[in-house]
Amino acid sequence: MKKCSFGSDNHSGIHPSILQAIERANEGYCFGYGEDEYTEGVLGQIEALLGNDCKALFVLNGTGANVVSLASFLKPFSTILAPSCAHIIEDECGAVERFSSCRITPLEQDGGKVSVETVRAQLKFGDQHKVQPAILSISQPTEFETLYSVEEIRALADLMHSVGGYIHVDGSRISNAAAAMNISIKEMIADTGVDVLSFGGTKNGLLIGEAVVIFGLERNREMAQNLAYIRKQATQLYSKNRFIAAQFEAYLKDNLYLKMAAHSNSMAKYLEKKLRESSAMDKGVYFTQSVDTNGVYVSLSPLSDEQLDYLREKYIFYVWRENIKEVRLMCSFRTTEADIDSFVADLEKILA
Amino acid sequence: MKKCSFGSDNHSGIHPSILQAIERANEGYCFGYGEDEYTEGVLGQIEALLGNDCKALFVLNGTGANVVSLASFLKPFSTILAPSCAHIIEDECGAVERFSSCRITPLEQDGGKVSVETVRAQLKFGDQHKVQPAILSISQPTEFETLYSVEEIRALADLMHSVGGYIHVDGSRISNAAAAMNISIKEMIADTGVDVLSFGGTKNGLLIGEAVVIFGLERNREMAQNLAYIRKQATQLYSKNRFIAAQFEAYLKDNLYLKMAAHSNSMAKYLEKKLRESSAMDKGVYFTQSVDTNGVYVSLSPLSDEQLDYLREKYIFYVWRENIKEVRLMCSFRTTEADIDSFVADLEKILA
Amino acid sequence: MKKCSFGSDNHSGIHPSILQAIERANEGYCFGYGEDEYTEGVLGQIEALLGNDCKALFVLNGTGANVVSLASFLKPFSTILAPSCAHIIEDECGAVERFSSCRITPLEQDGGKVSVETVRAQLKFGDQHKVQPAILSISQPTEFETLYSVEEIRALADLMHSVGGYIHVDGSRISNAAAAMNISIKEMIADTGVDVLSFGGTKNGLLIGEAVVIFGLERNREMAQNLAYIRKQATQLYSKNRFIAAQFEAYLKDNLYLKMAAHSNSMAKYLEKKLRESSAMDKGVYFTQSVDTNGVYVSLSPLSDEQLDYLREKYIFYVWRENIKEVRLMCSFRTTEADIDSFVADLEKILA
Amino acid sequence: MKKCSFGSDNHSGIHPSILQAIERANEGYCFGYGEDEYTEGVLGQIEALLGNDCKALFVLNGTGANVVSLASFLKPFSTILAPSCAHIIEDECGAVERFSSCRITPLEQDGGKVSVETVRAQLKFGDQHKVQPAILSISQPTEFETLYSVEEIRALADLMHSVGGYIHVDGSRISNAAAAMNISIKEMIADTGVDVLSFGGTKNGLLIGEAVVIFGLERNREMAQNLAYIRKQATQLYSKNRFIAAQFEAYLKDNLYLKMAAHSNSMAKYLEKKLRESSAMDKGVYFTQSVDTNGVYVSLSPLSDEQLDYLREKYIFYVWRENIKEVRLMCSFRTTEADIDSFVADLEKILA
Repeated sequence: MKKCSFGSDNHSGIHPSILQAIERANEGYCFGYGEDEYTEGVLGQIEALLGNDCKALFVLNGTGANVVSLASFLKPFSTILAPSCAHIIEDECGAVERFSSCRITPLEQDGGKVSVETVRAQLKFGDQHKVQPAILSISQPTEFETLYSVEEIRALADLMHSVGGYIHVDGSRISNAAAAMNISIKEMIADTGVDVLSFGGTKNGLLIGEAVVIFGLERNREMAQNLAYIRKQATQLYSKNRFIAAQFEAYLKDNLYLKMAAHSNSMAKYLEKKLRESSAMDKGVYFTQSVDTNGVYVSLSPLSDEQLDYLREKYIFYVWRENIKEVRLMCSFRTTEADIDSFVADLEKILA
Repeated sequence: MKKCSFGSDNHSGIHPSILQAIERANEGYCFGYGEDEYTEGVLGQIEALLGNDCKALFVLNGTGANVVSLASFLKPFSTILAPSCAHIIEDECGAVERFSSCRITPLEQDGGKVSVETVRAQLKFGDQHKVQPAILSISQPTEFETLYSVEEIRALADLMHSVGGYIHVDGSRISNAAAAMNISIKEMIADTGVDVLSFGGTKNGLLIGEAVVIFGLERNREMAQNLAYIRKQATQLYSKNRFIAAQFEAYLKDNLYLKMAAHSNSMAKYLEKKLRESSAMDKGVYFTQSVDTNGVYVSLSPLSDEQLDYLREKYIFYVWRENIKEVRLMCSFRTTEADIDSFVADLEKILA
Repeated sequence: MKKCSFGSDNHSGIHPSILQAIERANEGYCFGYGEDEYTEGVLGQIEALLGNDCKALFVLNGTGANVVSLASFLKPFSTILAPSCAHIIEDECGAVERFSSCRITPLEQDGGKVSVETVRAQLKFGDQHKVQPAILSISQPTEFETLYSVEEIRALADLMHSVGGYIHVDGSRISNAAAAMNISIKEMIADTGVDVLSFGGTKNGLLIGEAVVIFGLERNREMAQNLAYIRKQATQLYSKNRFIAAQFEAYLKDNLYLKMAAHSNSMAKYLEKKLRESSAMDKGVYFTQSVDTNGVYVSLSPLSDEQLDYLREKYIFYVWRENIKEVRLMCSFRTTEADIDSFVADLEKILA
Repeated sequence: MKKCSFGSDNHSGIHPSILQAIERANEGYCFGYGEDEYTEGVLGQIEALLGNDCKALFVLNGTGANVVSLASFLKPFSTILAPSCAHIIEDECGAVERFSSCRITPLEQDGGKVSVETVRAQLKFGDQHKVQPAILSISQPTEFETLYSVEEIRALADLMHSVGGYIHVDGSRISNAAAAMNISIKEMIADTGVDVLSFGGTKNGLLIGEAVVIFGLERNREMAQNLAYIRKQATQLYSKNRFIAAQFEAYLKDNLYLKMAAHSNSMAKYLEKKLRESSAMDKGVYFTQSVDTNGVYVSLSPLSDEQLDYLREKYIFYVWRENIKEVRLMCSFRTTEADIDSFVADLEKILA
């Protein structure tokens, strides 16, 4: 495809090192379904990276990671709490509900984030007529690529634990969060008390592959034991699993996951900078979200529909809120400064 | 992994042409989730191969293909009929039931096959206390790699249609069936009246990828329209879908799918021949299933447990029925005559 | 129990005529599970009352009626639209989601009602990442005992039908609506295009029993055919069904259902009148909802917590919104003017 | 209905003492949903009867009792083991699967009973491709009204507990078992280690009402805590619950439950005796099951189809196995010796 895409980081294909790892893994025979020593070894590397008090398992995609993660912590009458903009609410066609038959209760959000107060107001228990809150699901970075601080995550985890509940992090872009905050995923997730993480890979340069990680093996022992069955039942067990293991090995090696994420983030920062410096700002273009990781949200309201269409002929991107012509511009390991320079120049030209 | 594997065709990794296709597809940006022209084009090729009166969609794995296929044809109170040895009963950890909440009614089978009489005996309707038969699911080749004839499939399809029901074919190895029967998948599946097919790829040399194909777009229009939603909900939608499309393009090109399958089948035939000619037959080794495609089932009952373990140190294979030491020996695109010669020689040596 | 209850109309027990009907039905033997002529006859009476182009079936309770009604109109990826205050959202512990695995999308409401505009904004179709709106569920009277006009119901039904969708009415108090609006249930429900009705009985003087009614047998033929299986599967089939039939026969005879409902409504009107005339209004007590049927909502904010507790020692009622001390006062076939006089007098005394 | 019914004990209506109890309970107002002191008191009586180390809750019907009982002990990937003739398999239209999404694995049975060996053969754990056995469900008396001995129940319970599993008893006719075995339900169920009981009432003279009882509050504490939510979600919570409580109070008082059951059982014994003494036995009529409680199973194979129809014009009964004209003759609290004398005389006349 010729067009440059800011549509999604998953438009960017596979990082060369990842493809090479797949090729290398394609030698000889190998047990299927993750029952090989190779897979075991790479899972051990992930667990070590995340502090060892955890159990990791590979799954195929982000929706699968979320379904498996959440289903492990639910009872029939549980409800999942999540910001109203959550991927599990807005973008997964009801997969979590289909698999678990549990309700997701949408919470008010601001910049993609829920507050301790908002969550606390939902924590009512004991009425037999009501679904019972069991687990909070947040995204880090959020659906608008903004960030919770370590303190905010810890506060939410503490709150949920204080009522016997749990916290899940949808980390389809967790590496971008770690790179942006300059801390380890362990510090951000394991040390703050998160119970289960969807550890993303596909959006950050893998061909395919994510991991589900359950933390706190003492308190969550049973969930960790059940994980493999729930994965299989959720159609997320991969027969030729060595090829996910190989990708993750390359992903972790020399911190490739952080390097790719850092590049994506820096491209978003560069895009933000170029836009701020551009004449578009004077014409009424404005930022609608803080640029924390690899997504840039701007309102292009000064553009007419025709001008917007014209821009979309050269660049792929999605409109978020139609009414204010808010667009999302995602950067990836493949994004270059030249791409961005070209985009901003075109925008200026159109507005001129 | 050093060992030679007859454990499963999915132990064999990726065919080189398939890997090259993935590499080629990794250029530039591409829309995600199958919403690219490339994916559309390859789906069109599949549909053309299968007679055009059908709708194809890519999914990730075999369990996913079965879940999506079956769920498209069920009402809440439906039951799926399937041979008791079916993959959806024995090997998918209840994924179909979890997703659909419908019962699978296990039927008596012989050599992996169900008869028209067995199915007909289940076709009772109208009692509000009973689940109602909706769809028959068979595997072609069967779970024991044996084959239904075209006439047998047609008779089962006719029977189900005569009561307003449907028929699904789990074709995770459908190419092996087509190669062995020397007919097209269209003749075997579309022309016999099958309603929905799980069209396998992964077991026959792909990295990852299967297709769900719904036939008979007039009678099954609604099911075809719903397919994409059910796929997403079943966690089977792949973001970087171009890489499945690329594999299938290479798979169909110059009939690679048939060539790989034919090789696997011929290796199984070669293994059968070598075993029949070997001294093992005189020692009491015997075949337990007809060798129709790429699986060979033999009873190694003359071997002691220790001897069996010794053989398994050099070769990977699985024991099917413990009591008669029945083993399954699967051949794949990677299997060589040398592998087989070595295996048979070792078996003879042990028995000597 | 000694206390007078305004807590719920279901606190009031069984109307004497209903109990007598049960006794009369308890003669001799009778087929179970509704497969008796008696049940059939009474269902025929209900269908005649509702215009004949419908199919009725008895179920046990209101949650069951809603589950059976809605499940009959859902596909796996459907979403139900309902006001955020809906009984199926707030008071059924997720029963609809558990049975159907479908999401209920909560809509903004005003006085318990949703507007055509609010519903229309949700009617987006075709994005494979999103659940697809299938059926709108409203309550008549609403959860706050207010009323939709016939025109409003028709407009909502027309809107849903215009996109191939459906409309369900949770009519656990439908007789109260009919009595208050002085029109027949047929005019209100069948003639406005409603697809399926939960026709309540228990809250209006029955021992136990509701009916599910599907309208429009041409367009909803399949749903009507499936109803009995879904009822059984939802655990809503009653073995000694003649006793529900007997109750409904008495309920319809001489319009007992309307008479009881009219009494309940008039008691609510009387309560409203007495409160308006009372000194409590000057002290800051105010109505929070329009009194349309048999529920009265007032804010008792002038009362201290202790005073409220004191009142609750003599009368049963529930607090709806804690922050404004809003209470719900329900009237039933058993409520008397003396009960109300006493309640208002006590309230005045406390406030004095 | 004029005809005498041996069709089902639920054809017999309501025992007069039970109806009187309902009438008595219909005084004044009462909290709904079992949140009244009256309900609590009667549940306490049930728990005392069953040994106190248990928690009881009322539900509406037998299918509901089974769904609530079983769902309390399942994980997503669990399977329920049950004899192939189980009510939950044959007569509930998939309600358990719909609610739980778990598979019921059918087991070979003899006279309605499963053996320890049959169950043990299923107890395989740890393969991620397989559903995992979690709970055994048996019926006492069985679906053919035969009986497990106390030792047999204990052996099955011990077996399930030895692998961390559970045992459920579908006791829709549990009083008949207790009366026949002349032991208490406590001795039969609580003392043998049963985890959860569907305690039937409706088939033995109640208008409507069953109880779910969880035993072993230390090991099953969590299940007991969850029971009320699962009941509500399964649509089995009754608003005017005092009327079930009142029935159970009368049911337990002076052992009415045992008296009714003993009468039913003795009528079955009388029917067996009269048949054995009759000329029908010489003509080829024979018993197909042991007469242990209130059901009599005989093959009426000497009768032509016309003769069978003729008999069915005067008496209601169901044919079980068509091929041998096996019929089930159920006795109830309402059955009289005169009914039986008449039936046997008619049978003799037809065969003469």
